[in-house]
Amino acid sequence: MPPAGARKLAPEPSLRRLPVYLRLLTRLDAEGTRTVSCTAIGRELGLDFTQVRKDLSCTGIVGTPRVGYRVDELIAAIQRFLGWHRRTDALLVGAGNLGRALLAYEGFAQYALRIVAAFDIDPSLVGTEVAGRPVRHLDDLPDIAESSGALVGILTVPAGQAQSVTYTMVLSGIRAVWNFTGARLEVPRGVLVEDVDLGASLAVLTNRLEQASTC
Amino acid sequence: MPPAGARKLAPEPSLRRLPVYLRLLTRLDAEGTRTVSCTAIGRELGLDFTQVRKDLSCTGIVGTPRVGYRVDELIAAIQRFLGWHRRTDALLVGAGNLGRALLAYEGFAQYALRIVAAFDIDPSLVGTEVAGRPVRHLDDLPDIAESSGALVGILTVPAGQAQSVTYTMVLSGIRAVWNFTGARLEVPRGVLVEDVDLGASLAVLTNRLEQASTC
Repeated sequence: MPPAGARKLAPEPSLRRLPVYLRLLTRLDAEGTRTVSCTAIGRELGLDFTQVRKDLSCTGIVGTPRVGYRVDELIAAIQRFLGWHRRTDALLVGAGNLGRALLAYEGFAQYALRIVAAFDIDPSLVGTEVAGRPVRHLDDLPDIAESSGALVGILTVPAGQAQSVTYTMVLSGIRAVWNFTGARLEVPRGVLVEDVDLGASLAVLTNRLEQASTC
Repeated sequence: MPPAGARKLAPEPSLRRLPVYLRLLTRLDAEGTRTVSCTAIGRELGLDFTQVRKDLSCTGIVGTPRVGYRVDELIAAIQRFLGWHRRTDALLVGAGNLGRALLAYEGFAQYALRIVAAFDIDPSLVGTEVAGRPVRHLDDLPDIAESSGALVGILTVPAGQAQSVTYTMVLSGIRAVWNFTGARLEVPRGVLVEDVDLGASLAVLTNRLEQASTC
């Protein structure tokens, strides 16, 4: 049973920082550091130590006064809190350029994310392999979702097909959609959507650049 | 000269929604719709109309009571505000899987972003082409940054090399870094960084999934 503290929904900004702490802690661990304080973490990452303490407390772990946290315990607590202590299986739909990049991306291993299979409707892609994973026809998604028990769907189709593929995913048992399409998705209550919108990210960058050049 | 209203820094959440409006407006325009109200936009996108009005007012455009906005004018205002009314040239460093996916991604055309050249230090990549763009040695970056006048640097190197490549970019005149590495970057004042951190995004998704399965 997880600790009671872990059941509260953590604020998103804190969640987004946890992988940053994890990268630092993994490095410290590799360097042989055994304990670390909020102050030291904050100094290293340019964050206020009270923010660090608040973020880390989400995971349910409590530091020792004047000593801080044991690095190995903190790593384990963050991984457990993020669900990265055991493998998460995902299905990817849309084996175009972005989909293929995600299939080939080795960095997902650090998040314990494994893409089991990819799907597409393009006859020139169906039946091929990308980075060792088969590209299947979208029609096979319900069967493979059931046999694999995958709960995460990675959506890398054109925006115009995003909603209909999402329905297929949800009907096949996918509980969380990682959406790279830029489309706004409607999902039933209880299904999670996390958007990675490159256009939105670029909007911030180019607007700021535009403002800087005209001010 | 831009309108005075456009000089104020717009809030990030509003900026991130502007591309969503733009996609809707482009579709409406293609369908022959000439005017649109905040209420209609809000209904289509599941947003409150007061939020829509606030977001759109960032661009300096004002609607007409009971009529709304002219679709073509609104498209132009958003594009101008985001700096998408003219081409932005970018250099990409790190021609691995993710870099190659971004090079091949045709969706950047809608944001008027053009990747001029890619850079790497891997001898097996330098001298090749990806999606019609040359992969040059990182040592050539200062020269090509100068000759192209590119202001945006797209960073797709391993996290451990992110900071040193950022220094090279900044010294070569890059004013805005689009950071896909997950590393926290230090930059001089006046240089912009926009992070696309897949780990942070995945942290939100898998934590919520973990909480849902244990509650």
